[in-house]
Amino acid sequence: MLKQFLIRRYQATQSVVEKFKFKDLNSTTSIKNLIDNIDSESLEKKKYTINGWIDKKAKKVKKDLYQTSIRDGNGNLLTMIGSKDQLHGLNLEDCLQITGYLKLRKSTSAAKDDPNDYEVALQDVKILNKVESRIPSSLINLNSIEDIPADFSFLKLRKPKYTHIIQSRSKLKNLVRNYLENDLQFVEVETPLLFKSTPEGAKEFLVQYDDNVENKSNLYYALPQSPQQFKQMLMGSGVSKYYQFAKCFRNETLRKDRQPEFTQLDMEIAFGTGNEVMQIAGNIVTKAWNSYASDVEDAQKLYTLDNQGRPKLVEKEEDILRMDYTESMKKYGSDKPDLRIPLKIINMKEFGGKGGLNNPVFDSFEIIQLPQLIKTSKELNELKKFLLDDLHYNDGSRKPVVYGILSERDLELWHEAFASVGIFESPKLIAKSLNLKVGDVIIGCDRESDSFIFENPTPLGKARTLLYESNISFLNEYLNKNHPKLDKDIVSWMVNFPLMNPVVDETTKKINGYPNYKPKCIESCHHPFTMCQLDHLPLLLKSLESDDLNYRQSLFIKSQHYDLVLNGNEIGGGSTRIHDYKLQSQIFDKFLKIDAKNQEELFGHLLQVFQSGCPPHSGFAIGWDRFLSVLFKTPSIKEVIAFPKSNTGVDELFKSPSLIEKN
Amino acid sequence: MLKQFLIRRYQATQSVVEKFKFKDLNSTTSIKNLIDNIDSESLEKKKYTINGWIDKKAKKVKKDLYQTSIRDGNGNLLTMIGSKDQLHGLNLEDCLQITGYLKLRKSTSAAKDDPNDYEVALQDVKILNKVESRIPSSLINLNSIEDIPADFSFLKLRKPKYTHIIQSRSKLKNLVRNYLENDLQFVEVETPLLFKSTPEGAKEFLVQYDDNVENKSNLYYALPQSPQQFKQMLMGSGVSKYYQFAKCFRNETLRKDRQPEFTQLDMEIAFGTGNEVMQIAGNIVTKAWNSYASDVEDAQKLYTLDNQGRPKLVEKEEDILRMDYTESMKKYGSDKPDLRIPLKIINMKEFGGKGGLNNPVFDSFEIIQLPQLIKTSKELNELKKFLLDDLHYNDGSRKPVVYGILSERDLELWHEAFASVGIFESPKLIAKSLNLKVGDVIIGCDRESDSFIFENPTPLGKARTLLYESNISFLNEYLNKNHPKLDKDIVSWMVNFPLMNPVVDETTKKINGYPNYKPKCIESCHHPFTMCQLDHLPLLLKSLESDDLNYRQSLFIKSQHYDLVLNGNEIGGGSTRIHDYKLQSQIFDKFLKIDAKNQEELFGHLLQVFQSGCPPHSGFAIGWDRFLSVLFKTPSIKEVIAFPKSNTGVDELFKSPSLIEKN
Repeated sequence: MLKQFLIRRYQATQSVVEKFKFKDLNSTTSIKNLIDNIDSESLEKKKYTINGWIDKKAKKVKKDLYQTSIRDGNGNLLTMIGSKDQLHGLNLEDCLQITGYLKLRKSTSAAKDDPNDYEVALQDVKILNKVESRIPSSLINLNSIEDIPADFSFLKLRKPKYTHIIQSRSKLKNLVRNYLENDLQFVEVETPLLFKSTPEGAKEFLVQYDDNVENKSNLYYALPQSPQQFKQMLMGSGVSKYYQFAKCFRNETLRKDRQPEFTQLDMEIAFGTGNEVMQIAGNIVTKAWNSYASDVEDAQKLYTLDNQGRPKLVEKEEDILRMDYTESMKKYGSDKPDLRIPLKIINMKEFGGKGGLNNPVFDSFEIIQLPQLIKTSKELNELKKFLLDDLHYNDGSRKPVVYGILSERDLELWHEAFASVGIFESPKLIAKSLNLKVGDVIIGCDRESDSFIFENPTPLGKARTLLYESNISFLNEYLNKNHPKLDKDIVSWMVNFPLMNPVVDETTKKINGYPNYKPKCIESCHHPFTMCQLDHLPLLLKSLESDDLNYRQSLFIKSQHYDLVLNGNEIGGGSTRIHDYKLQSQIFDKFLKIDAKNQEELFGHLLQVFQSGCPPHSGFAIGWDRFLSVLFKTPSIKEVIAFPKSNTGVDELFKSPSLIEKN
Repeated sequence: MLKQFLIRRYQATQSVVEKFKFKDLNSTTSIKNLIDNIDSESLEKKKYTINGWIDKKAKKVKKDLYQTSIRDGNGNLLTMIGSKDQLHGLNLEDCLQITGYLKLRKSTSAAKDDPNDYEVALQDVKILNKVESRIPSSLINLNSIEDIPADFSFLKLRKPKYTHIIQSRSKLKNLVRNYLENDLQFVEVETPLLFKSTPEGAKEFLVQYDDNVENKSNLYYALPQSPQQFKQMLMGSGVSKYYQFAKCFRNETLRKDRQPEFTQLDMEIAFGTGNEVMQIAGNIVTKAWNSYASDVEDAQKLYTLDNQGRPKLVEKEEDILRMDYTESMKKYGSDKPDLRIPLKIINMKEFGGKGGLNNPVFDSFEIIQLPQLIKTSKELNELKKFLLDDLHYNDGSRKPVVYGILSERDLELWHEAFASVGIFESPKLIAKSLNLKVGDVIIGCDRESDSFIFENPTPLGKARTLLYESNISFLNEYLNKNHPKLDKDIVSWMVNFPLMNPVVDETTKKINGYPNYKPKCIESCHHPFTMCQLDHLPLLLKSLESDDLNYRQSLFIKSQHYDLVLNGNEIGGGSTRIHDYKLQSQIFDKFLKIDAKNQEELFGHLLQVFQSGCPPHSGFAIGWDRFLSVLFKTPSIKEVIAFPKSNTGVDELFKSPSLIEKN
């Protein structure tokens, strides 16, 4: 039985695939190609062959006439009409090859380029592989990959939405590569994945050097979090312009929508400034975005904001708004603001309001005012329940105060609600200046001094975006009407970051909710290889030379780091690097407290490069999965990855990681 | 001091790099571009700026006139002439930016496209980074990367030879990608590197799921040896044509010239035959090879052999010789023969010679005859010492018998030397038929029956290539004169491999040097997903259905596997896969003794795909590093990799793997 069955199966397959001469493969298998190239003379006369899957259960349309559709590898569908023998026994997702004549459907008058206008009158149906397990019904109208059982998650790519995503991912990578290699003479260099453990950084994946788990040797490689050190080495190696789509690894308890392995478009140029790198990175994002937008119906081109805060089309990097870090922290309470959101944060200083009650550094007081948002205490409670839900603050961030004015009395006493975070010269005058009324909601909090904002996002920065993420219908209606989110995709640069930041004491992380900074401790805001702005170099050198670290002064040094922000996501970042041995070594020593011995052990290779005629250099990296997820408008980066892992790093399809017994 | 020094350094750098507007970057930094675009009007009139490194110590050519050269990031050199102040203090590999006027060198009459014809009269020299460590002298005339101390190995890429290699690697990858994506509509899909451990395969690198070495949890990922399972899953996922330059990992005691991580051009097509895949893979290799050959002086195009064994230019895949596995084992004693070597192996059957003395399966006797090779016993001993050196056989392979005829008596008694491996009807008649003479050398050994050759290479197959690898001058002169290696690069296909092979008992690996096959044990010749040839399917099914495995019969089944062989290197391999659940499951069960439970645990995901309408599919992989090493004619694959590891898997530049203490 098995024997006869299998021989028939493989003979069918063989006879089928033998028909495909290589040169015919493209045109024969793609429904789009077939329809694009059909002429009226071939209609109903020429026989065509298509490979694919049954997309729906056949239904009877006439006596012994059944109808269903076939879906090809590009996600295109074509209706087919055949006899009961040909179609009735077929199940969803059976793999087959059909042969037949193409004709126009009755509802259509003239031939068009749309597969929906055609149907195939079947001559022959060959089953290449029949489904022998129960295909889950969730797959039929698939909305999110979360709906598919893990065992069947591989089937998502048969659905047109995901076929399109995976094909677009490939196309856009190729577009970027050709731009970098052909237009700009970049060289792709592959860097090792069996890297060295650097215990200072974030948590890494360790790889056993020995092949035997029982062998208790302590030698390990580590998987790289990025090719940062390799690419700086390459600059010293004389590679002028390097790029690579690099695999990177982060062994973290996964934060929202992260993957333990991810893809980064990585680049670095020798003898180059930050400006040049920003131009290249900005052009890549713009080209990729606009190429996709022009291919896809309903997709919009890329926008930025102009000086007046109005949307402006981005056609090249120079169009992209450059935003100052401190300005962004003040206006949006975040270094990656979602600029589609029009809500403003108001500093109350000019109204006679300030902070500093619980912590002298937190000397500002600011609010978001939402006039005429609520009518009832039920609405207020619903709003507060959402905005103050512990879930949003499990990263240890602070909550703001949310106050709703439901009565004249509430209006008079509004300042009492903020008594723990603000000091007000004249609450009445403020109420008048702000034109506070019954129905208004005020969200308020204190924050650090204007020139020294490290809490990121600030409580109000967080509230600003949270407001747009609820399921509260009256809130959403209100925002849509009064503060509608821009229906454009907004990109911007973030520049003038601090070089160093204070170190938060993780053990006593918060005191009264405020970040508790370790005295006299600073760390690199991005990474220790970042160069400061040239006019801050004297300040940096002064800090490095003093025996006693000038903590406050060091925090004012600005870096040559730059982030690319898209709809509130940091999709890329880069910097001009230090290329001088002495400066790098001093930063390791004085700021990061890595002594000479450890410097040699951890970064000896890099310091050697800096001593061997390494040119000045600048680089950039784009989080490719994240960028595509924003571009394709998927709810999660999982949807742009062929075989994603769960939020805890588990591959539920392959059942990995797996137990390995140590005897 | 430091402060002033660093401020000056970075100000110089900044003023230097600020000059480079992005649009000028390409033309300004490349010597080649500059020379290609120079016109006589600009000569000695226009000022140019070049970034690069000092390539040699300046020498005095006149009073206060020094000469040296600058090397740019593409490895091109330009002579520069300047004052003592400008040039005298500079050291090898100092990184600088020069400005000056371009003029023709005195020795040159008219402007050409060669940088050697020009020199720069210096106006300004800016030192961007001075060398502060001792650059090893081995770097000056670099021949092999083995000459450079590990600490300085990154400097190899500044040398023109390696600059060219790394740039060509990038260009060829892009050429292949554009061919696959634009001409053939392949889709690049990235597959995970945090894969699942499959203990059945070769040794793998294990990755700890937990971030803490102290945590003794037994959960591990493994790094993939290839994306084999992923790409077969993708076929089931509906991706019609997949490709990827994939990172692969092998945790082996490294064999000659292997790397623990390497790059593979991986591909798979649904609804496709082996023929189609071979056409694509063959075209890729041909296109890449010939594109490189036409760019590089002295490089030759790709050749194959025609039916008469003569070199034939390869212009497309169809030109490439297809060689039968059994034929190749008989003629060359190897499934990856170096076809540049003209030496033939002669089966002595027709001369009345046979094997089978020690092992009835080894019933053939064959020789390589080298007429008039030696004159003295010293020469014979030198030859034997080399050919029979234990070093060549530390993989456990057998040695042949080497016999030199130095006298009439040796001529008479030749057969006695082979008495342990051969039986001869009439030694005299053989001597006459072969025209044996004093001065001849015969290398002889027995081997398995013609239709059943699994020892690979055979002792004579090994001797055939070894002869061309010695430093023995009389041998090399003899071979050059009488059996010269073709000076072409020869590619061929190897087809009709067996599906299964006998399992060598590793514990008693050899009995009298012969491979000791475990009774009734077979294993997949390549991997268990390989499909048999269709006319052998009845035989395969018969073997699977019998309760008692028909060992001998199973070994006759031929597979749809194909290797691409280039100058004796297997540079790629592929096959048509099994796509039927029942057949795959039976092969796991009956041949590989993996029971149902383990099948589910190890390959459950793949069996699920096969039950969900997986199309027939075929695929291929090209070892990219190996291919480039053959193309670029480097002594080792290390030379085509930016940051190679040692033969024991150690990264001597980064000092990895490193010790991690378990407390």
